[in-house]
Amino acid sequence: MTIKYLCLSVALIICVLTPCSAEEVPISDATSECLECHAIIHPGIVSDWQKSRHARITPKQAMAVEGLARKVSSQAVAESLSGVVVGCAECHLLRPDAHADSYEHNGYTVHNVVSPDDCATCHPTEAEQYSRNIMSHAYGNLVNNAVYQQQQEAILGMAHEPGGKSPFKYQPDLSGAEACLYCHGTKLNVSGTEVRDTELAGELEFPVIEGWPNQGVGRINLDGSRGSCSACHTRHQFSIEMARKPHTCKECHIGPDVPAFKVYTASKHGNIFSTHQAGWQFSSVPWTIGKDFTAPTCGACHVSLLVNADGDVVARRSHQMNNRLPWRIFGLIYAHPHPLKPDTTVIRNKDGQPLPTDFEGGYATEFLIDRAEMDKRRNAMQAICLNCHGTSWVEGHWERFENTIQETNAKTLVATRIMTEVWRKGHAAGPPNAAANPFDEAVEKLWMDSWLFYANTTRFASAMAGGGDYGVYADGRYHLNRRIAELYDWLQLRNTVNPPQ
Amino acid sequence: MTIKYLCLSVALIICVLTPCSAEEVPISDATSECLECHAIIHPGIVSDWQKSRHARITPKQAMAVEGLARKVSSQAVAESLSGVVVGCAECHLLRPDAHADSYEHNGYTVHNVVSPDDCATCHPTEAEQYSRNIMSHAYGNLVNNAVYQQQQEAILGMAHEPGGKSPFKYQPDLSGAEACLYCHGTKLNVSGTEVRDTELAGELEFPVIEGWPNQGVGRINLDGSRGSCSACHTRHQFSIEMARKPHTCKECHIGPDVPAFKVYTASKHGNIFSTHQAGWQFSSVPWTIGKDFTAPTCGACHVSLLVNADGDVVARRSHQMNNRLPWRIFGLIYAHPHPLKPDTTVIRNKDGQPLPTDFEGGYATEFLIDRAEMDKRRNAMQAICLNCHGTSWVEGHWERFENTIQETNAKTLVATRIMTEVWRKGHAAGPPNAAANPFDEAVEKLWMDSWLFYANTTRFASAMAGGGDYGVYADGRYHLNRRIAELYDWLQLRNTVNPPQ
Amino acid sequence: MTIKYLCLSVALIICVLTPCSAEEVPISDATSECLECHAIIHPGIVSDWQKSRHARITPKQAMAVEGLARKVSSQAVAESLSGVVVGCAECHLLRPDAHADSYEHNGYTVHNVVSPDDCATCHPTEAEQYSRNIMSHAYGNLVNNAVYQQQQEAILGMAHEPGGKSPFKYQPDLSGAEACLYCHGTKLNVSGTEVRDTELAGELEFPVIEGWPNQGVGRINLDGSRGSCSACHTRHQFSIEMARKPHTCKECHIGPDVPAFKVYTASKHGNIFSTHQAGWQFSSVPWTIGKDFTAPTCGACHVSLLVNADGDVVARRSHQMNNRLPWRIFGLIYAHPHPLKPDTTVIRNKDGQPLPTDFEGGYATEFLIDRAEMDKRRNAMQAICLNCHGTSWVEGHWERFENTIQETNAKTLVATRIMTEVWRKGHAAGPPNAAANPFDEAVEKLWMDSWLFYANTTRFASAMAGGGDYGVYADGRYHLNRRIAELYDWLQLRNTVNPPQ
Repeated sequence: MTIKYLCLSVALIICVLTPCSAEEVPISDATSECLECHAIIHPGIVSDWQKSRHARITPKQAMAVEGLARKVSSQAVAESLSGVVVGCAECHLLRPDAHADSYEHNGYTVHNVVSPDDCATCHPTEAEQYSRNIMSHAYGNLVNNAVYQQQQEAILGMAHEPGGKSPFKYQPDLSGAEACLYCHGTKLNVSGTEVRDTELAGELEFPVIEGWPNQGVGRINLDGSRGSCSACHTRHQFSIEMARKPHTCKECHIGPDVPAFKVYTASKHGNIFSTHQAGWQFSSVPWTIGKDFTAPTCGACHVSLLVNADGDVVARRSHQMNNRLPWRIFGLIYAHPHPLKPDTTVIRNKDGQPLPTDFEGGYATEFLIDRAEMDKRRNAMQAICLNCHGTSWVEGHWERFENTIQETNAKTLVATRIMTEVWRKGHAAGPPNAAANPFDEAVEKLWMDSWLFYANTTRFASAMAGGGDYGVYADGRYHLNRRIAELYDWLQLRNTVNPPQ
Repeated sequence: MTIKYLCLSVALIICVLTPCSAEEVPISDATSECLECHAIIHPGIVSDWQKSRHARITPKQAMAVEGLARKVSSQAVAESLSGVVVGCAECHLLRPDAHADSYEHNGYTVHNVVSPDDCATCHPTEAEQYSRNIMSHAYGNLVNNAVYQQQQEAILGMAHEPGGKSPFKYQPDLSGAEACLYCHGTKLNVSGTEVRDTELAGELEFPVIEGWPNQGVGRINLDGSRGSCSACHTRHQFSIEMARKPHTCKECHIGPDVPAFKVYTASKHGNIFSTHQAGWQFSSVPWTIGKDFTAPTCGACHVSLLVNADGDVVARRSHQMNNRLPWRIFGLIYAHPHPLKPDTTVIRNKDGQPLPTDFEGGYATEFLIDRAEMDKRRNAMQAICLNCHGTSWVEGHWERFENTIQETNAKTLVATRIMTEVWRKGHAAGPPNAAANPFDEAVEKLWMDSWLFYANTTRFASAMAGGGDYGVYADGRYHLNRRIAELYDWLQLRNTVNPPQ
Repeated sequence: MTIKYLCLSVALIICVLTPCSAEEVPISDATSECLECHAIIHPGIVSDWQKSRHARITPKQAMAVEGLARKVSSQAVAESLSGVVVGCAECHLLRPDAHADSYEHNGYTVHNVVSPDDCATCHPTEAEQYSRNIMSHAYGNLVNNAVYQQQQEAILGMAHEPGGKSPFKYQPDLSGAEACLYCHGTKLNVSGTEVRDTELAGELEFPVIEGWPNQGVGRINLDGSRGSCSACHTRHQFSIEMARKPHTCKECHIGPDVPAFKVYTASKHGNIFSTHQAGWQFSSVPWTIGKDFTAPTCGACHVSLLVNADGDVVARRSHQMNNRLPWRIFGLIYAHPHPLKPDTTVIRNKDGQPLPTDFEGGYATEFLIDRAEMDKRRNAMQAICLNCHGTSWVEGHWERFENTIQETNAKTLVATRIMTEVWRKGHAAGPPNAAANPFDEAVEKLWMDSWLFYANTTRFASAMAGGGDYGVYADGRYHLNRRIAELYDWLQLRNTVNPPQ
């Protein structure tokens, strides 16, 4: 394949894939140069980008939009960027000194991993909001919490090492990147460089990045920033449509620990989405209730800028995402008021553990939002509900939801008290022995299931009015009570077989 | 916001949202008055209604349709209703004396909860059919059956109450409304009134309704009627399209107890639906096999009026839904011929229990349909199958289906005999001790799983030809035999550790 | 209904259902005769066929297509077939002497079960490729392997036969056809004939076919051939669109044993499919990356002919399907290099068992592909990945994938060593006692889960970058380690209660 033919191909590809003519879409020289090769070697990336809004609109055009329809929050974008569409170079050449993976590549200083701080060039408000999102700290909140590290070890480690020699060797770090850190995000690190013989340009040098690939929500980037916008706005279309559809959230929230997607699709809202979504508008900004969509998706309640038919704002756009969530229903180990700060490693419960509740269910109050903030968040959420439901409906729902939080916390307490008895009698090794992992023995997994899977699922079913099976037989109350009965049965039998001295 | 601006908004909303012009859609004065405020405060409800057929067609126009395309079964609708579209007032003002939640609201006697008896104004045949549907009795069949109440208590109650004081208090009634009664329906009750300060009209008085919100299939309404049409025809579009798509049935039939949706989507029929549904017509009445759709959804086999390409009726519309079901494969605790009457609380097995089978699997024959009725129902179902399958295909399928019923019943019998031995030897408390809950101990849950989850799933996989994993590894035979082996293992160990005296 | 009216109906149906006019679509006389009755009695079949490409294009037209767009691989189709569209007669009358179910039917020798050898008339390359697909041997690989037969017996058989008499009798063969053989395929056999009184033609004689209906991938047909093209190309549209959408694969690969579909829909690729598929072209041949679709479905990576935007071939069409799979990650009982031959009954591990690995994880190397073939297959797969991902991304992914294979194999080894100890101490009956089924006791099912469900799911999550929950809490590592802990707990307790002598 000669270079001449290559260029012709690129021209053809750009011509075919771009809806607007070349005159109308000002592409920077640098991006054009990128496309010359990359349209050949990575056609999927390029065609995806061609379908994006980034490929069709310049920041200047985007900033000319007034009012609620405006998608960029920056008031001023550098002249060099604002007049061209947002192509390869506009992101991958940004802030070259900030990125540890910057390298010389055909005359440009390129970095592979684009970070929220890069995106903040045009979307600073969203980046700032996201930095207050607990998800942006998902890496540190897991890795720097001793209790969660015991939990991770019990999941990833080798249970009951074999005495004999294993023919199979593996690296736990690589397993971790595929397990917990797939969603939480890896910590990226440039460990060196390597030379690769490329198809189109011969030998080239590239950085070697540990922890790559990853698009976890709390990824530690090579400029020190946290998160990955492409976790939800998948490269290289970065589409708002995708972020608003529930399939995106499903990538990490499928359960049984955080079963948001499963519960949603079994709810009335999910039914309406599944039935009618083909006729909805997923790209409108602002997003108009009743006109663009007739039932909420995840994004509608938690993220999107919503207006009613009059154009009045019902909910402001929030990449913090928990502004409308008074309760954190993902029990650790009990449901509790949301943490004050996205960095949860600073939390200490009354026993000094880095947990938002103690083992008896007491809240680590000073690290959690107060009642006034909870009320404010509840009101913000209910303001959305009220667009399609009457007051008595909304209040009836909320009363049940808060009751279910109390119910599942009470049942978690029962389970935890049996577990504590098991530890106390020496049938398993755990607290107060800090060295003993409280999550790695068979009986401890019964206890863990009770709150992590079944209390959680019961609460999600309640929160999203997706009751029915998820409140009962599908990881709901049936299984919560079952695990408690099994814990009790296990303890009774061990007390008989191995009476405590 | 001034009233003048409000009215303008409403006019705009109605204008924008209604496809037809104002002249063509006669809206009653009362409904217009409703819309003046509610289009502002509940825009989602109003826009949903605007998308409905109710908002575009008057009963008179609907009754002018002849033959199979006719959607209303009433022969005569009151003059006051028949000339206007079916708006807010046409349903929420109907039969004011019948509804315990009727209240004065801006000069009208309004009730919030519209019931099947209201819908029967235009759809009397459907309401009558539904009253014969076992689902319409789902509330009483659960609440007034002592055995099922033990089962519910084992699921909702507090297993092994903690000795210590719990910081968490909850109301079991509210939990129940989110669990079993979410699908079965709550019993609504007006407990009083409350005054609320409303945004648009200042202080107003409203009824307080216990058990609200709820759209369960057997809801006991405030006019004494049973059921909720919006369980399947979701408010306020009430669309036939939604009722015909399987997502509606999924709300309650996701499993593992009644895994109809999961099995369907893994079946050949479900594959065809998932692949081709975008090109199907879901609103046609009658519904033409091969033209409007090329594989059945739940509605096609169980509810809808189907015709072949000649327009000949293949299946009549049925809101009774079990007209084509000889067997009830949701085992209680064995699969059995369908009950004769929708009220199953009258059933007594040979041991006097309110169950359609006894613990040895014998049928409570006099309360169940007979062989002639079973044959009639089987033939009615097969008449649908035969539109796309040859006789040998259909007969081969049915032979396997009835064999699977026998197989799973036989295995349930094995499980039940081991369970009975556990009770007999005193390892758990249960029958014949009527006071002992047979569902609340760990070993009893092994037994319950075997029929409620795994025998059921195996039968659904068979019935809907969605075999494969649901017949084996996904809640199928693998797990059925596993639970039996676990029961046996549990009994052997207890016999060793706690030898019966 | 008179014959005259019938004919009119058929004419109308054909007229209505066929997009092209009668002149343009040459239908054979034989097929026209079939349609005369079958459009009446099986309208769903006929209308499905009418929507197919088979009903609109003759083999001659199909063979006139040059290059990659060509869909038929035959170079010459008999004159009698090539000039007419592919209707009923063109398939069901083919090779009458080869089919044991051929019978006289209105003057024609018809066979009901069309086989891959029939389809090979026009699609010989695909049939030949499929014969090398391990799926084509799915029947024999299960039925003729003594170890898998023990596994099947433990699933289908009656665990712990009741002492008393059961009122329920069933036929295990029929159960088997609904369980394992639903996907693996049944062995068809003509056991006789029967006379049926038909609606349109009075008494007619038909063959009675044991094992029918079935569309399993390894079905043994009545001409001795293996497989069923309609497993994926569902009759009678036989659409490429359906085969390319993941719902088809879901029919058998839903898990928890082979959870490909579940993992896919939770992956980034699956998210993109779910979000954007409505705008994709599923029928284009060849299938252009970036233009026709922007994320792979199952078919894209494993089967389809893919080209890039330049029209260069990225992947060749393969009905062998494992050409791009170096590893078989469906552990039996460990993941291992793919078998050399589709008939796996010939495999012997070092202990003489018909398994690709021994119980210590050693590979039966001489029956598996070698490193060179593995590298070739890996390169073929990565050539697809590289269209949308950079080299470091692809290599990083692959390193983790192979690490996860080692990790899950190492954990399976731990589980197997505990299991071996259980057998050695006589707590359960198993190897080396060849007569003892190693899969039928409660403790053995703990072991089986560990590799069949949880090691498998962990590997699928890795392979398809659908990590997150499927790598951890949703049948992933959490459950793998849990089962190992349960096995260990079970063994410790039995050692205490029943000390080995």
